[in-house]
Amino acid sequence: MDDRALGSIPFEDIHPGMTVSYSQTITDADIKAYAGLSGDHNPVHVSSEYAASSRFGKRIAHGLMSAGFFSALFGTRLPGPGCVYVSQSLNFKRPVYIDDTVTATVKVNSIDALQRRVFFETLCTVGGKVVISGEAEIYIPKSKKD
Amino acid sequence: MDDRALGSIPFEDIHPGMTVSYSQTITDADIKAYAGLSGDHNPVHVSSEYAASSRFGKRIAHGLMSAGFFSALFGTRLPGPGCVYVSQSLNFKRPVYIDDTVTATVKVNSIDALQRRVFFETLCTVGGKVVISGEAEIYIPKSKKD
Repeated sequence: MDDRALGSIPFEDIHPGMTVSYSQTITDADIKAYAGLSGDHNPVHVSSEYAASSRFGKRIAHGLMSAGFFSALFGTRLPGPGCVYVSQSLNFKRPVYIDDTVTATVKVNSIDALQRRVFFETLCTVGGKVVISGEAEIYIPKSKKD
Repeated sequence: MDDRALGSIPFEDIHPGMTVSYSQTITDADIKAYAGLSGDHNPVHVSSEYAASSRFGKRIAHGLMSAGFFSALFGTRLPGPGCVYVSQSLNFKRPVYIDDTVTATVKVNSIDALQRRVFFETLCTVGGKVVISGEAEIYIPKSKKD
């Protein structure tokens, strides 16, 4: 199967500054699903009563849930299928509350043509404020056998 | 509510070397749920036909899904509710395949008593081989107002 047919951007067509974004409103359904999947039933995520008495004042989303949108952008948009996720750093700057709309953005910072690596800046924002910052490294194999 | 009642370990009782682990067998149900939650429908995760022709030879789990087990360990075991996730780095070393049992382990590396920060080594293994390595920083507030 041709990866390009599934939306992959060829390594040679990737340039610094290229950017893609995805937005999702975080709801109770997301948080409960993620708690079940990860096993993270920290009451600050699942109990309104506990969260009301916490430093956050109300329930917050799991930080790693919003980070999943970076993976979605790499795996389906830029560069798309066929790429290999090498590393990701995440700095959790602010909480994400229920009904917040998270916008995840990945932007090409630099490229190592010899090693076929693409280095990205990765950001999640809510209302223009950064909630997660970080960086990612993606490897784009020449062929399946690399 | 007393955080300790929910399983939190007080900052003063945390020492380098303390370790907790969690194991989960990754199934198709996990992968489909994570794809729906994150939007990452990369065919290497959801299409056996595509994955068979990929470098991995068969479907693999989303790397960030396994990372969620770190969050679960911090949020429910060590230190438990009340802690603040400051940062996480992730190096994806090997793929996780369907029916692999992932063991996530977080181990206290060092402590900054003044800033009330705990620094962890975070590892996911499958059959004793590292699939994700990284580090995390956790802040343990003195009270809700810190």
